[in-house]
Amino acid sequence: MSTHNLLSGFQDFLPESMLARNNLVSVVRGCYEKFGFLPQDTPCLERTELLTGKYGDNEKMIYSFEDHGGRRVSLRYDLTVPLTRFINMYINNIVFPYRRYQVGLSWRADKPGKGRFREFMQMDADIIGDESVLADVEVLTLMASAMEALGVRSTIRFNCRQILDSLVEMCQLDSETSVSLMRSIDKFDKIGQAGVLAELAGIGFSPGIIDKVGDYLKITGTNAEVLQGLTRLLGEAGAFQTGIALLSSITDLLAVQSHSLVDFEIDPTIARGLDYYTGLIFETRFVENPEFGSVCSGGRYDRLLKRPNGEFLPAVGLSIGIDRLLAAMKSVGKAPVFKTTTQVFIANFDEKLSSEYLKLAGELRQAGVAVEIFSKQSKIAKQLDIANKKYIPLVVLVGPDEISLSQVLLKDMRAGVQITVQRDQFVPAVLERLGLNNHPLAV
Amino acid sequence: MSTHNLLSGFQDFLPESMLARNNLVSVVRGCYEKFGFLPQDTPCLERTELLTGKYGDNEKMIYSFEDHGGRRVSLRYDLTVPLTRFINMYINNIVFPYRRYQVGLSWRADKPGKGRFREFMQMDADIIGDESVLADVEVLTLMASAMEALGVRSTIRFNCRQILDSLVEMCQLDSETSVSLMRSIDKFDKIGQAGVLAELAGIGFSPGIIDKVGDYLKITGTNAEVLQGLTRLLGEAGAFQTGIALLSSITDLLAVQSHSLVDFEIDPTIARGLDYYTGLIFETRFVENPEFGSVCSGGRYDRLLKRPNGEFLPAVGLSIGIDRLLAAMKSVGKAPVFKTTTQVFIANFDEKLSSEYLKLAGELRQAGVAVEIFSKQSKIAKQLDIANKKYIPLVVLVGPDEISLSQVLLKDMRAGVQITVQRDQFVPAVLERLGLNNHPLAV
Repeated sequence: MSTHNLLSGFQDFLPESMLARNNLVSVVRGCYEKFGFLPQDTPCLERTELLTGKYGDNEKMIYSFEDHGGRRVSLRYDLTVPLTRFINMYINNIVFPYRRYQVGLSWRADKPGKGRFREFMQMDADIIGDESVLADVEVLTLMASAMEALGVRSTIRFNCRQILDSLVEMCQLDSETSVSLMRSIDKFDKIGQAGVLAELAGIGFSPGIIDKVGDYLKITGTNAEVLQGLTRLLGEAGAFQTGIALLSSITDLLAVQSHSLVDFEIDPTIARGLDYYTGLIFETRFVENPEFGSVCSGGRYDRLLKRPNGEFLPAVGLSIGIDRLLAAMKSVGKAPVFKTTTQVFIANFDEKLSSEYLKLAGELRQAGVAVEIFSKQSKIAKQLDIANKKYIPLVVLVGPDEISLSQVLLKDMRAGVQITVQRDQFVPAVLERLGLNNHPLAV
Repeated sequence: MSTHNLLSGFQDFLPESMLARNNLVSVVRGCYEKFGFLPQDTPCLERTELLTGKYGDNEKMIYSFEDHGGRRVSLRYDLTVPLTRFINMYINNIVFPYRRYQVGLSWRADKPGKGRFREFMQMDADIIGDESVLADVEVLTLMASAMEALGVRSTIRFNCRQILDSLVEMCQLDSETSVSLMRSIDKFDKIGQAGVLAELAGIGFSPGIIDKVGDYLKITGTNAEVLQGLTRLLGEAGAFQTGIALLSSITDLLAVQSHSLVDFEIDPTIARGLDYYTGLIFETRFVENPEFGSVCSGGRYDRLLKRPNGEFLPAVGLSIGIDRLLAAMKSVGKAPVFKTTTQVFIANFDEKLSSEYLKLAGELRQAGVAVEIFSKQSKIAKQLDIANKKYIPLVVLVGPDEISLSQVLLKDMRAGVQITVQRDQFVPAVLERLGLNNHPLAV
């Protein structure tokens, strides 16, 4: 029946998927906060005119409609455009530099690509009102810190707009042709150098320019070698000194800290589609599955956010797509699986003993243990089967015999063992069985 | 400029508001999990036909539109209707009884009442596939547990549908008139007994019925007294025995645990508007501000969720409106205020020392401390002022002198004191200053 269908491009989350998502959000949020970022939020609905026409014709990808008051409203398609409104509105309530993060859903109305959804969750972190290289480095380090916290070997590849501008300058391209060039370079990961050059030839770029771009794309090696290669090729361009100084400073400051799982690589092929980046741009790939593509990316955008007086506010940030990152983690076998958060299942021998079960549950919950009580008097084998299917590690068995003996049976479903404990030792025994003895809650 | 306006009825959250909301969600989520509830999620958009026409004409309160594929879609207006689709779709992936919770936004298109919003966050917890009184008691106890965790003195008032049915039966009302009666009784808190009776008279209820309702509304006292009063008045009605047995069992089982901040009261005036409740119904008010009205409510609904074969799945649950609960907590001065999660601010004496600042920050973050680095070389007084405005408790001051002496200055912004520590004692000294010595992260 169609009423019972999930809309195409949307997802439901059963508890197992939800626990995985919650865990990921919690780990990343922990990293954001360790770097001094604070949470903020904006509504999912905005005035349509705020969202449309920012980056060309984007109406096809936005859900828009007229509300009951005749206003044109839209579901946000990212967390950055609403940020422009937010910063403008609360400029006097914010102490700059402002480190903010936002966890929220966004929507795209057009048909989603493989592994993507019409409704998706993003976690953005931005430093606003700070034009320094140190801020760039903080964002890159935060990215690395998140990958380390998630336990995934990653490569963060970065470049900067000024280097790409130098290439455009050396090729003497006008702004329209330079956009085509950037778009082609951006496909490097997918189609390789030959693919990019063939595409440029197809568009009608001259052989001289194609040669230059070929030389540019060939620059690889250690960060020092890439910097040298870039200098050889682009050293004459006007924008180049700023670019090379920026990449050098970033590289030097990144070297201060070591990351066991993360490498930083200067990569001239990183171009990023969005034209709002003005400095640093970066992407992140998993070492074990680079084909998956970038799992999180970001950069500096000094010409998007404005004070009410029109003055630009420099900003640098990153964005993590939670669904995509989780899919990538699954692809390398690094997505932790959580079946349940419930630790104890209290079986039901007799509905007349309900008050005893409530008492047992209350004591455990007081000690911080997550408890489900089974409410139906039914065969114990059936109840154990249910506890098992729910992946609950410990079952409490108390029938009339246990009551009269002041005892409790604990069945450890993982080890398959059953132990008898005295009623007055019940809570400590459960905590011990769950390995919570040294847990703060057990004190 | 209108593009920069927030839509009317919607909210932005600056970090301070967001930290308060996150804290509330986290405390309630912790309670839900302690009671064995697991998270699930559904999309914000659903097919319009799923949402409309469930409880009369509700199209005015729903945001609906046509998507780019010509489908009629709507933003959900609660978390319960999508649950009907969810249960039906994943019936074979769920182990019943299913304790699930959901934290999510919902939207209402009509003009919101005072203190309410068009976009609002709810936290629902439900036990599905469990018709037992124990499940009713678990939900009530969970409600109490959440209020205790939030530290607010509350009264949970409950009633059941069968008692109200008995009143309808004794008054010999048809189903249409009984709906008017329930609607009037539901206003008891706002307009009092005289108000309800006057309203009934206005509608045209007979004096005999108005007398009976008057007697019904007069029943107060201890839970035992209320049960006696109800028996005297309604004991002859067909539905009564089920109702009184249910209220008695619930009262007995609730007595097993004591709650220092929460009282449970049987209250015949609780009627609840929604007609999907089939048994227990309850509301929660703060003792210190009962006028605020119910902050969270719920009940049993055994005729809403269905298996694919059409068989009903019994369910009982509660719903907490986060914005409303937070507003209520503020009204009694019990909403904790969080200014920031950032613990340390590293001042910037000289941009050339950036790598040292990154090193200091890295060490602290490794130890779990939340750190912001100030990136601009500027007057220290100005930097201290910024740290102060950001409510960051500790400032790290390292200039060329400290570097040459292998020292670090720590300025405690709360106490206004400054201490000098050796560079190699830096992390333990910060942890001590922050009171984190016994913190697991400090081990």
